[in-house]
Amino acid sequence: MPKTIKKVAVLTSGGDSPGMNAAIRAVVRTCAYHNVECLGVYRGYEGLIEGDFVVLDARSVKGIINKGGTMLKSARSKEFRTAEGRQEAYKKLKEKGVDGLVVIGGDGSFTGALVFNQEFNFPVMGIPGTIDNDIFGTSHTLGFDTALNTVVDAIDKIRDTASSHNRLFFIEVMGRDVGHIALNCGIAGGAEEILIPEEDLGLERLVESLNKSKKSGKTSSIVIVAEGDKIGKNIFELKDYVDENMEGYDVRVSVLGHMQRGGAPSCFDRVLASRMGVKAVEAMLDGESNYMVGLKNNKMELTPLDSAIKGKTKINLELLRVSDIMST
Amino acid sequence: MPKTIKKVAVLTSGGDSPGMNAAIRAVVRTCAYHNVECLGVYRGYEGLIEGDFVVLDARSVKGIINKGGTMLKSARSKEFRTAEGRQEAYKKLKEKGVDGLVVIGGDGSFTGALVFNQEFNFPVMGIPGTIDNDIFGTSHTLGFDTALNTVVDAIDKIRDTASSHNRLFFIEVMGRDVGHIALNCGIAGGAEEILIPEEDLGLERLVESLNKSKKSGKTSSIVIVAEGDKIGKNIFELKDYVDENMEGYDVRVSVLGHMQRGGAPSCFDRVLASRMGVKAVEAMLDGESNYMVGLKNNKMELTPLDSAIKGKTKINLELLRVSDIMST
Amino acid sequence: MPKTIKKVAVLTSGGDSPGMNAAIRAVVRTCAYHNVECLGVYRGYEGLIEGDFVVLDARSVKGIINKGGTMLKSARSKEFRTAEGRQEAYKKLKEKGVDGLVVIGGDGSFTGALVFNQEFNFPVMGIPGTIDNDIFGTSHTLGFDTALNTVVDAIDKIRDTASSHNRLFFIEVMGRDVGHIALNCGIAGGAEEILIPEEDLGLERLVESLNKSKKSGKTSSIVIVAEGDKIGKNIFELKDYVDENMEGYDVRVSVLGHMQRGGAPSCFDRVLASRMGVKAVEAMLDGESNYMVGLKNNKMELTPLDSAIKGKTKINLELLRVSDIMST
Amino acid sequence: MPKTIKKVAVLTSGGDSPGMNAAIRAVVRTCAYHNVECLGVYRGYEGLIEGDFVVLDARSVKGIINKGGTMLKSARSKEFRTAEGRQEAYKKLKEKGVDGLVVIGGDGSFTGALVFNQEFNFPVMGIPGTIDNDIFGTSHTLGFDTALNTVVDAIDKIRDTASSHNRLFFIEVMGRDVGHIALNCGIAGGAEEILIPEEDLGLERLVESLNKSKKSGKTSSIVIVAEGDKIGKNIFELKDYVDENMEGYDVRVSVLGHMQRGGAPSCFDRVLASRMGVKAVEAMLDGESNYMVGLKNNKMELTPLDSAIKGKTKINLELLRVSDIMST
Repeated sequence: MPKTIKKVAVLTSGGDSPGMNAAIRAVVRTCAYHNVECLGVYRGYEGLIEGDFVVLDARSVKGIINKGGTMLKSARSKEFRTAEGRQEAYKKLKEKGVDGLVVIGGDGSFTGALVFNQEFNFPVMGIPGTIDNDIFGTSHTLGFDTALNTVVDAIDKIRDTASSHNRLFFIEVMGRDVGHIALNCGIAGGAEEILIPEEDLGLERLVESLNKSKKSGKTSSIVIVAEGDKIGKNIFELKDYVDENMEGYDVRVSVLGHMQRGGAPSCFDRVLASRMGVKAVEAMLDGESNYMVGLKNNKMELTPLDSAIKGKTKINLELLRVSDIMST
Repeated sequence: MPKTIKKVAVLTSGGDSPGMNAAIRAVVRTCAYHNVECLGVYRGYEGLIEGDFVVLDARSVKGIINKGGTMLKSARSKEFRTAEGRQEAYKKLKEKGVDGLVVIGGDGSFTGALVFNQEFNFPVMGIPGTIDNDIFGTSHTLGFDTALNTVVDAIDKIRDTASSHNRLFFIEVMGRDVGHIALNCGIAGGAEEILIPEEDLGLERLVESLNKSKKSGKTSSIVIVAEGDKIGKNIFELKDYVDENMEGYDVRVSVLGHMQRGGAPSCFDRVLASRMGVKAVEAMLDGESNYMVGLKNNKMELTPLDSAIKGKTKINLELLRVSDIMST
Repeated sequence: MPKTIKKVAVLTSGGDSPGMNAAIRAVVRTCAYHNVECLGVYRGYEGLIEGDFVVLDARSVKGIINKGGTMLKSARSKEFRTAEGRQEAYKKLKEKGVDGLVVIGGDGSFTGALVFNQEFNFPVMGIPGTIDNDIFGTSHTLGFDTALNTVVDAIDKIRDTASSHNRLFFIEVMGRDVGHIALNCGIAGGAEEILIPEEDLGLERLVESLNKSKKSGKTSSIVIVAEGDKIGKNIFELKDYVDENMEGYDVRVSVLGHMQRGGAPSCFDRVLASRMGVKAVEAMLDGESNYMVGLKNNKMELTPLDSAIKGKTKINLELLRVSDIMST
Repeated sequence: MPKTIKKVAVLTSGGDSPGMNAAIRAVVRTCAYHNVECLGVYRGYEGLIEGDFVVLDARSVKGIINKGGTMLKSARSKEFRTAEGRQEAYKKLKEKGVDGLVVIGGDGSFTGALVFNQEFNFPVMGIPGTIDNDIFGTSHTLGFDTALNTVVDAIDKIRDTASSHNRLFFIEVMGRDVGHIALNCGIAGGAEEILIPEEDLGLERLVESLNKSKKSGKTSSIVIVAEGDKIGKNIFELKDYVDENMEGYDVRVSVLGHMQRGGAPSCFDRVLASRMGVKAVEAMLDGESNYMVGLKNNKMELTPLDSAIKGKTKINLELLRVSDIMST
């Protein structure tokens, strides 16, 4: 029979994403609903080691559901990768009487949580918060939908100027290892080509495809490039290559950068965050540990943390095909 | 063996929704991709009867993926409900050599398509376009996600002024028969109460709940009301009731209205529209008819039109519970 | 020689508007810059009478420049209209050692400030915060520019659905006594007609004008109506009149309501708020009192509070003419 | 007595800016209002030389007031800098019976117009369209206000992630020769420092100022850098310098790029464009030539083209001071 949970701590860790505040709010209010105390931990595992806590009740999280970033701040902690660091963190939690820990973050953060659980048998639950959508066990990570809308809005703006000038734009979006943002935003932004880490189009085929676009009557073009695209050139080298190998285009580069991480979360991300926060706390109160909550087929489901970490989310091949057809 | 499709017509019908233009574009480009001709029909079934057609090629739909509304315009046609009207429409399609018809709209539009097919054995495919998300066979209708973001943005703005003045706002959102918009936006907007057609909270319980909110320290409140809420009072009567039965609140009403139908579609709706357009045309080229394309578990699936029309989409009870917990 | 100001109080009063938080921040930071203490007063004159104060330093106003509403909340105070109420307010300010008061609000709030100054010779400065832009002595009030963008965004969305359905929309915007919002947004939203409190178009001419629009080939129309339009019918009566006297239009009504008051302030309003806050505090430190700060010809200028209250801002006749020409 | 103008041509030239479409619409509809014919010229002076014209009537410009970019497309023309090019352009205009030319663009475009007028005594009028706000004779150029809001929205998003991680961000905004965008957006975005072409802060003082910020309790910082900032380092070199000379900050760079040129124009820019279009055409019909229309003290005024070209718009020193005080 599981030990009764009476006090839960919550932290955000790794790169921030829109919806993290909404998830914090949901964790705190679900605790309040079940008469469980709740502590916020500042700056992820760093703050855990330092004992940088704050008491959170239902009113403390008022007005944050629509704020980007994380009110608890986030960090990457080297110390938590050491046994001493984790020992210190455990001590701090025990001092405060905390019984369970909810970690909002990506797979690096979950790895830390899992090791921590294994060492101290301390209940942990994960909520997937990252714009990259690269976590196994959920169709959508927190912040992914918001980031898509931010990127598409930027592409729309760039399209205005591209089509006024018959220009070719390379637009870099986030995604070192996965092309989810690039692929969705490429389709939604009406891109002529999408370069993702999962697929090597090759430079020749890129130029060929752009030439075909041009012949079909297109006077401006947009190519979406994920940070980690397979061609293995950075976006400025791509521009140079096309400058040398294509005529009639004025080629420009835009790197969207960190604005992709911020902004008010979309309705989808706020609802998802609320559902995930409820599920994470209630699963923990039911005696579960070492799970990540996720969205599967529009339902909340639990996935073991180690599967979430090891698993791979694959690119949807149907979307690749849709992209090809749409750039006809 | 199915007859080969060589020319497809596409129309939008019923209330417009964001993403309809993106779906038209997808239908047109998929036709182009498969070397099938494509005609657009203006003003839904009205234009079909009048033969108000336009030839659409890949370039004709340039720059519309991010536009709200529908370039083909929409209408509700009384004449298409008569056998004579449908006979005339059939004649016009035959004259133009059209082999198949894609209908983008809601269940009323699908009923028309189904009857038309039964009378003339004419291939039809449906794409669910409505902000209400009330169509069986797809987890999301085209425009639903965009409408959610529009509504949540409006709630955020009203919240600014509500909390500056310690006010109670009743906000009416679309949804005569279903509470999907109200429920999602209520959660995402941090509403204290959500009144939907599927559930009768009762006026006494509403006041009780608002009083509880107030005692818990909330100084302003937002109640989201679907057009067709079960309490059976219109939103101004609700205000009057609360004015008479609660003290200490300045009660206001806001009816969001038709702006919910417009605006640039979200990334989600653009991708969904693109996928649906591809699927609808390719299914038709494969010899299918009388289906609606839909999103199920993140995959494109076909649902027989009669199931789509008769089926009911139920409110997600989990969301009701999340809403209760979040308003703690 | 003016008494040295060592402690300033700031409050927001009347209807809230976007930019009020930015103005509070500017007042607080200008005080900090000049080593003057600053107190915030909650709920306008109500809080002044109750002594509901909060110490504000440069860090207290972090992260509010982009927030709608007012962190100090606002209210309308009946008690401050009585001599006893003002006496109590004066007592509370003296107890706290406050030397000067900055009032962010509209003309009602300025009237209160002026009376207060006359009774107690207490230094007061006004910052014009209202979306209506109806205050003499400044080309722009705080929040006006933001409200314009909010309204135009809503009109754009409604236009999407209007033009998809060949509809005529009456859209009501704020402005009981002045038509600034209606006139600017009408031009920017491409409205066919704009009804404002300053001008009586007459119902017959409205219908005539709409008929002319229709004949010129327009298939949908938008009429912007200020709350206080001169025709003297409310917007639903307007719809009924047009329904009876025009054919071929499906007429709809949308009342934009309180969302016009909220939202993140525009760049213009944030810069204006910052400039006004600096000017208000520095003028006070220079010994000035009973002035409102305002924008004139892109410069900060002082206007005596009584002129600001009594003066009238007139509608720009050039804009009326531009509107007529644009609806050609 | 001036020759009667019976046919006007309009073109957009140079970098595009939001509001150009609204200005085209205003020129076209003002012509229609006065029964003057109107031709659109594609791709600026390039299209003029090639005779790439389109007839525009009141209905041709429907639905473009809220679109970014320019429907007439823009270009920079080398040929128009030659006497032969201009001779050819003149010939094309005469062939079509055009009597006057409205040029929407920046100072380069105006220089072309002026030379053209001097050579052929052809009536020309300028409308200042550029996001940089660097044209003498108008307090605001078309697109400036929209660009400000686009930049501030991006800064808000970056601020979310900056403050979640205690980061220092250098954000590059447009402005090679003038710091208007940087200065306004720096204030509105709550930047700690603003680097502009007009002022050399010096690297040491920058680091000093950031250190002071940090000591005052700020945990994240944003520095806005105009493209042409005076320190003379590009933004990546700035980052390197700070990385080496400051501790405790994780320094990041974001270059906002071309998205600053696009997007739906703000209400302000749409109204301004409408006013400018009316004024430009009506001034020309009144026999004027060689002027630029501009906004001065909220009124439409004419400035001789040569003054507009030679004049310098200075940075508002008051804003620099406000920026200093706000970063207290």
